[in-house]
Amino acid sequence: MRTKAEPQDDGSYKISGQKIFISAGDHDMSENVIHLVLAKIPGGPEGIKGVSLFIVPKFIVNEDGSTGARNGVSVGNIEKKMGIHGNSTCVMNYDEATGYLLGDLHKGMRAMFTMMNEARLGVAMQGMAQAEAAYQNAVIYARERLQGRDVTGVKNPDGPADPLIVHPDIRRSLMDQKSFVEGGRAFLYWSATLLDAAHRSGDKDADGLVSLMTPVLKGFLTDEGYDMTVKAQQVYGGHGYIEEHGMSQFTRDARIAMIYEGANGVQALDLVGRKLAQDGGKHVMAFFEMIKTFCKDNAEVEGMEEFVTPLKTASKHLQAAGMFFMQNGMKNPNHALAGSNDFMHLFGHVCLALMWARMAKAALEALDAGADDATFYETKLATARYYMARRLPATAMHLARIESGADTVMALDAEAF
Amino acid sequence: MRTKAEPQDDGSYKISGQKIFISAGDHDMSENVIHLVLAKIPGGPEGIKGVSLFIVPKFIVNEDGSTGARNGVSVGNIEKKMGIHGNSTCVMNYDEATGYLLGDLHKGMRAMFTMMNEARLGVAMQGMAQAEAAYQNAVIYARERLQGRDVTGVKNPDGPADPLIVHPDIRRSLMDQKSFVEGGRAFLYWSATLLDAAHRSGDKDADGLVSLMTPVLKGFLTDEGYDMTVKAQQVYGGHGYIEEHGMSQFTRDARIAMIYEGANGVQALDLVGRKLAQDGGKHVMAFFEMIKTFCKDNAEVEGMEEFVTPLKTASKHLQAAGMFFMQNGMKNPNHALAGSNDFMHLFGHVCLALMWARMAKAALEALDAGADDATFYETKLATARYYMARRLPATAMHLARIESGADTVMALDAEAF
Repeated sequence: MRTKAEPQDDGSYKISGQKIFISAGDHDMSENVIHLVLAKIPGGPEGIKGVSLFIVPKFIVNEDGSTGARNGVSVGNIEKKMGIHGNSTCVMNYDEATGYLLGDLHKGMRAMFTMMNEARLGVAMQGMAQAEAAYQNAVIYARERLQGRDVTGVKNPDGPADPLIVHPDIRRSLMDQKSFVEGGRAFLYWSATLLDAAHRSGDKDADGLVSLMTPVLKGFLTDEGYDMTVKAQQVYGGHGYIEEHGMSQFTRDARIAMIYEGANGVQALDLVGRKLAQDGGKHVMAFFEMIKTFCKDNAEVEGMEEFVTPLKTASKHLQAAGMFFMQNGMKNPNHALAGSNDFMHLFGHVCLALMWARMAKAALEALDAGADDATFYETKLATARYYMARRLPATAMHLARIESGADTVMALDAEAF
Repeated sequence: MRTKAEPQDDGSYKISGQKIFISAGDHDMSENVIHLVLAKIPGGPEGIKGVSLFIVPKFIVNEDGSTGARNGVSVGNIEKKMGIHGNSTCVMNYDEATGYLLGDLHKGMRAMFTMMNEARLGVAMQGMAQAEAAYQNAVIYARERLQGRDVTGVKNPDGPADPLIVHPDIRRSLMDQKSFVEGGRAFLYWSATLLDAAHRSGDKDADGLVSLMTPVLKGFLTDEGYDMTVKAQQVYGGHGYIEEHGMSQFTRDARIAMIYEGANGVQALDLVGRKLAQDGGKHVMAFFEMIKTFCKDNAEVEGMEEFVTPLKTASKHLQAAGMFFMQNGMKNPNHALAGSNDFMHLFGHVCLALMWARMAKAALEALDAGADDATFYETKLATARYYMARRLPATAMHLARIESGADTVMALDAEAF
């Protein structure tokens, strides 16, 4: 809003201002660094509507494509951060730097959001992926590290201690991680197929569904993904706290995913304040209808009842939460927004329960057909059962919080904190 | 177990071996550094029963109290850690170092646990205290940082943005923190009064109750305390991720409290595997009885119903969980241990609900008596209401997880992860 773009006679602009928190804002890994900068042209529309998007290179690119003179772009500071130390997070200063308009005049925010929506899906993937890497390390350590004894019976009383993985509380942690990582991966792949349908065959319903789920993907997968890296680190005990094994790095790196490309509070606001009502609420209705159809089609299928029943319950919790927002948010939007974080998490659990129910169905079918890799499918079934039994009870808690409304949340004056 | 203590003619011992993760294991802040070292005297009892405790100084202390010759104590390494950088965490090597027996021969573990029990209470305090410091910073930032607009009505359309603290999701985060910090502080103070009763007047019931609650204090307050530092950091957005504001340091420092002096999984094991059944289950029965009496005495007190009812429900959840362990843990201890972490958290929530109900009662009485600082007491009441409405719904979730038993937790072979 404060960065200025002065039009020049040759059609370019002189850009002056500052950006902060610019990932890889400067580095020596490429010949040139090309910045996208939002700026206002003096005399344009007031406020956010007067913002345009510009290309601002570190070095001016000559007519023949060669790298030319240094542009008025400089690094003001490189931030010291909790993690992602491979990324030079820069304060960038633009001092009458030459820039070129990208997209339409004064339509900079729209152009920027094309990037932001993609970036949010990328960060969602990051949340799952960092949990996955941390989980793989935790499993190896839990198998190798000998500590304590299996309480159900010591197999080798004169031998060394048992591996960590015999202990139920270590199992609980590893199963939390495994069921999240595999469920989250399925959630991301499903979204990717919807995106393909939207981009390749113009499926507007698929596009609407991904748009609805984008804040859930970003917010839920990065909040949970971070928690999972903390759990993986905990398996290592003191060895997880020192930097030697790399487990601390997973948590330090994963922490940023809850913040950048729109902090998760903003994702929850986007979900409840915008996406739910988008296109008249059409997409969220389609989501509920899809789950209803899945449950109906599979209720009588042998072996599916234990997955369908909890999915149905969780989906009803989500619908009840949406209903609470409709009935109370009209009078006072705070009743909806005070529950936005819980709603995002409730939504995420329903999505993962749907993924696990679908994976269970595929596993049952594969086993029925006499698949070679029976252990793989039986492991999927066991992990699906874990998710339903141990993770899905969270949906009732989120609903209870949501239905308590905004009164206790907003009761205090700002000075009373 | 591998460190050796060879008896010498003068009554001292020669200690050889290694200790790891020794906080402030060496430094220049005092004239001498005195180590407590567990070691085995050759020919003593087998296993853990043959361990004795020794005093091993960095410098030998002369007869007259002056600092003498350097002892065979050296630093093998200083660990690079996620946080607590003010603490030199050392690998300590003892190479025929002179040591002196502390306490009784072969009773080293008992002597060590005197220290461990105190240390666990200290770390519990640390969990709450780091959350408190982080919370205080988050409140200041939320009041000062201008971003977005109050959705219930823009008071100054031409002015700058509103402070963060107007937003319901920021309130939710701050109220989570405030209700934890103040509830946790009350929990610690209550435990301190019980300790005083035990130490100063030999109250064995008070001693038993603190012994029961020690793993809850340590495990619950450090797990939750860490989560609260993450929430406080999140209020700062990107500014919480850079080191400049110190918010990252709170989370990096608080992370250790979940690990040291017995990792929280060990606390949960201690609670469910030992403390519940201690003295025939007398102390946990007394705990339930105390809550029952409080609820009965206050059910009809004006203004108390909204606090008594949720406390009663939460306490019933905890009793049901204990009952599940009794009925199923006998057949298979894994049914109890797979729920140990959830039980510790359920227990913690019941303790904080009891604290909030008591504080609410004190606040109502003070207001009734026309206390000067009415705002202080009304703020307590509002925060108590928040805890009941927004945090206590977690108890039903923990119970549901516990009652699902060990089957889904233990289903997989170690190779199937």
